[in-house]
Amino acid sequence: MKIIELIEKKKKGKQHSEEEIKFLINSFVDGSASDAQMAAWLMAVSFSGLTEKETAFLTEALAYSGKVIDFEELKDAIVDKHSTGGVGDKVTITLIPLLAAAGVPIAKISDRGIGHAAGTVDKLESIPHMNTIFSIDEISHQVKEHNAIIASQDENLAPADKKLQALRNITATTDNISLIASSILSKKFASGASKIVLDVKYGSGAFMKTPEEAINLSRLMVNVGKILNKRVLAIVTSMDEPLGRAIGNSIEVIESMEFLKGHIVDGDLAELTYSIAETILVNLGLYDDRKEAGLFLKNLIDSGKAIEKCRELVIAQGGDVEIVDNYDKFELPHFKIECESKKSGYVQKINAFNIAKASKILGASRENSSDIIDYSVGIYLNKKSGEYVKKGEILYTIYSNDEDKTRVAQKLCDDAFSINENKPIHNSLIYKIIKTEYEDDDV
Amino acid sequence: MKIIELIEKKKKGKQHSEEEIKFLINSFVDGSASDAQMAAWLMAVSFSGLTEKETAFLTEALAYSGKVIDFEELKDAIVDKHSTGGVGDKVTITLIPLLAAAGVPIAKISDRGIGHAAGTVDKLESIPHMNTIFSIDEISHQVKEHNAIIASQDENLAPADKKLQALRNITATTDNISLIASSILSKKFASGASKIVLDVKYGSGAFMKTPEEAINLSRLMVNVGKILNKRVLAIVTSMDEPLGRAIGNSIEVIESMEFLKGHIVDGDLAELTYSIAETILVNLGLYDDRKEAGLFLKNLIDSGKAIEKCRELVIAQGGDVEIVDNYDKFELPHFKIECESKKSGYVQKINAFNIAKASKILGASRENSSDIIDYSVGIYLNKKSGEYVKKGEILYTIYSNDEDKTRVAQKLCDDAFSINENKPIHNSLIYKIIKTEYEDDDV
Repeated sequence: MKIIELIEKKKKGKQHSEEEIKFLINSFVDGSASDAQMAAWLMAVSFSGLTEKETAFLTEALAYSGKVIDFEELKDAIVDKHSTGGVGDKVTITLIPLLAAAGVPIAKISDRGIGHAAGTVDKLESIPHMNTIFSIDEISHQVKEHNAIIASQDENLAPADKKLQALRNITATTDNISLIASSILSKKFASGASKIVLDVKYGSGAFMKTPEEAINLSRLMVNVGKILNKRVLAIVTSMDEPLGRAIGNSIEVIESMEFLKGHIVDGDLAELTYSIAETILVNLGLYDDRKEAGLFLKNLIDSGKAIEKCRELVIAQGGDVEIVDNYDKFELPHFKIECESKKSGYVQKINAFNIAKASKILGASRENSSDIIDYSVGIYLNKKSGEYVKKGEILYTIYSNDEDKTRVAQKLCDDAFSINENKPIHNSLIYKIIKTEYEDDDV
Repeated sequence: MKIIELIEKKKKGKQHSEEEIKFLINSFVDGSASDAQMAAWLMAVSFSGLTEKETAFLTEALAYSGKVIDFEELKDAIVDKHSTGGVGDKVTITLIPLLAAAGVPIAKISDRGIGHAAGTVDKLESIPHMNTIFSIDEISHQVKEHNAIIASQDENLAPADKKLQALRNITATTDNISLIASSILSKKFASGASKIVLDVKYGSGAFMKTPEEAINLSRLMVNVGKILNKRVLAIVTSMDEPLGRAIGNSIEVIESMEFLKGHIVDGDLAELTYSIAETILVNLGLYDDRKEAGLFLKNLIDSGKAIEKCRELVIAQGGDVEIVDNYDKFELPHFKIECESKKSGYVQKINAFNIAKASKILGASRENSSDIIDYSVGIYLNKKSGEYVKKGEILYTIYSNDEDKTRVAQKLCDDAFSINENKPIHNSLIYKIIKTEYEDDDV
């Protein structure tokens, strides 16, 4: 087999065999296929596409390019959740303690973030002494003991995917859905989960711009899961504005804890956390319908079991547990600037991109992997879409350690809000749940 | 301007500006665009194509990526000739002395060959002491003095083309006609010629398989020449079998000298040399029609002026001139094996690829650029297509220095000949002459 022949084959729109894809990825990892050859192949894929089968072969080849976690006797039980990413997306932090309290073993292997948003691991590290670096034995042990863990992604999980993603980022080949699907799934499969719930976002703040694109990606991932004997579920959700009210690190953890304490019952964060958790419980066969599962989950929160599980997990991962009941133990910012609305009316929309940019300028996320995150800064949206604000009322709050950066962030946030007198129609965040090739739930 | 945006643009099928193409090529040369990014762009070009204008911009950017020879006062007169390459193609060696004798200044900057065929420079170096390495001043001086030179291509001519070609070779992006056209023309333009005659081959032994492909490539190159104010002419010729009877190095030089002496008057080598020379004379306005030009050229040969010019050029380039009249001064092979035909009949065709492979096995061309060529070896076709051979009559002759290699070469050559009782129809070698977008001569 020769690399150039495989490039030529895809250039001509032909299909690869499993052996060919394995050979290609192995050659890329061992350096016998150059970056230039892989880049040419990636561009040929962008034009010719990959079939579901080819996508499955690629997913497997990427997953097995490094260490694959094997949870042994826990294997069939382990659930993992992945979101395609969004501004203010803290659903992992709300969901994991809730599911663990519900008795579902969940091992969440998370990325650190690069770009507009910090990753879950970054956010959690705003809790003093919180540890996210574990060996596989430690992960297994904690999941058995506490039903849950949030660990950072090991360098050796799917290293070919890491290498391929870096190449895609510089060669304008990020947007092919087969390449996206195999990248997401390979990491999840290498992380040892056999049941995976994907939160696939669409909208102005997401990579997929339309629900149709998100559905296509979701269906592909569900079908690839089927080919590879994994249970994959996808929940298609809209991402036109930041999720929840807090955007930053410690303020996102605080918002998550407030949800787990039962202090936040409405809004998009609650809606999405419940939907994903309900879907998982129903699909694991623990409940017959989502309504029943929802009541059970609500009871876990109202009874204090959810926040108690959160405390348990913070302790298990070495974090300072007093923080759960005393938010002042978080690193605090120098300035808290409450910004007033310049006009009265309903908030029509909040541009997620602007808010993300402002939050990055304040220091809440990284431009480069070597940048240090300031956990204390961020933006709190006092008003969200559909809510009425009076002129002079607080619209949003900036947490900052630098006056110049504050000014730039404030300009971006002011521009992010659209406000007028018409009450906007509220659309459900959850668009569709993709379970199999044929079976969807409309929500 | 960002490289990734240019890749994205071509991926979306949009057109590049002149500035964009210059930026891309400059970035490739200075290393700010990686090989992977260029490979992705090349593959996007393979799918989306380049317009004639974009091809012209690319040609110019490649030509100006290094030194560009300026012949100053000779500038407008200088003619160059390029062939897209073929087995046994020695037309440069027959054509240059003939044109120089006709008073046309011609500076032929040639490649060394890698792959199935040796280059013109390699072939000439079979003449003892023959020098092909000259400075630009020396080239100008010799053209002024003797009307002609055959020099080897300097490393600094169109270095971006060299780099791009190396990348195309490993990324399955060799076959796009805009990339082929810009590669050929950039080297010619950097070599300082303003009048360029291209011999574009098609057929089983050529890169272009059909006359249509060759015509498309030719028309593109002629039009690109027009955009860049160069006079480009293309002659489309068939290449289904080796050109002439000799395939090797010294034996090709001998065949060329035999032609210049007037000892070879028929056959494809004479036909092609006359056609190109006539076309150049007519297009320079020196003769009104090809017939008239042809008579003049024939007279140059019959009167001994052509071979005299050949002697003059050998002396000018330091070669041993006695060789012109005493072929035994060439390095001689140990074996000369005359191979007999196993059946009687007309030669229908001779597979050029097999003959090239046999000649390479004997040592007449390189696999890698570091390989050393054996000038003495080769294959002589005693019979060519359309000729009748009796069983037991000599079909071809192998010149060799190694018995094992001879056996392999002989098997390849035996398989190369198709012989049967039907007299094949003779087609003209010259298919079409492309002068402008609209104006062609059918031959």
